[in-house]
Amino acid sequence: MSDPLLDAADFTDDDLIPAIVQDAETDQVLMMAYMTAETLQETLDTGRMVYWSRSRQERWVKGQTSGHTQTVEEARLDCDGDTLLFRVHQEGGACHTGFRSCFHRRAADDGWTTDGEKVFDPDAVYE
Amino acid sequence: MSDPLLDAADFTDDDLIPAIVQDAETDQVLMMAYMTAETLQETLDTGRMVYWSRSRQERWVKGQTSGHTQTVEEARLDCDGDTLLFRVHQEGGACHTGFRSCFHRRAADDGWTTDGEKVFDPDAVYE
Repeated sequence: MSDPLLDAADFTDDDLIPAIVQDAETDQVLMMAYMTAETLQETLDTGRMVYWSRSRQERWVKGQTSGHTQTVEEARLDCDGDTLLFRVHQEGGACHTGFRSCFHRRAADDGWTTDGEKVFDPDAVYE
Repeated sequence: MSDPLLDAADFTDDDLIPAIVQDAETDQVLMMAYMTAETLQETLDTGRMVYWSRSRQERWVKGQTSGHTQTVEEARLDCDGDTLLFRVHQEGGACHTGFRSCFHRRAADDGWTTDGEKVFDPDAVYE
């Protein structure tokens, strides 16, 4: 199936495109991950975020293990076509460490301030 | 100078790290671009966003031509250290096409909806 987003998305040499994920309700940036054309297609077809894990080199359905799925509310592409922005409904937390957002630490002059919201216990979710 | 952010940031094989840029006032995602260790250091030292242009292969001070500078309000790093998130004060527009955000087009079933805010005339800014 042809899709304007798939046609316009500019995948890099390693056949990936970065996808920024933003909470559709709060506008918080939750995470960034990468998609192949196939996982982008699956995301658009199913309305659930599906990525490509670069570390595991495999397709990765967000929330398959944890239940912390992401439902697509809106998909955007930037001006030069090489970055996606999805606004999603996030169940639970986006971060595998239990925080709502993967960007839960802020750089301070003398180190880090962890000010993110912890929403689940990773030990209880990932066995 | 050592900096916790520079020490923790995980640059890829091509010595770059992606930086998501979010409007500190409205939470809108404005753009994504890449930084080297040197431009990240310069960004932290000066408080102005400085990138590495992959297309031109050169250092790129945001707003140097257009005046549409970005002042750093907050710098974050994600859980696995391979993506930066900056919250900035954006002068004018982030996008070279004149829009406030580079993500000014939304995918619709039959094409694109351009719903971004146009804030300047690129022909008047870039000669």
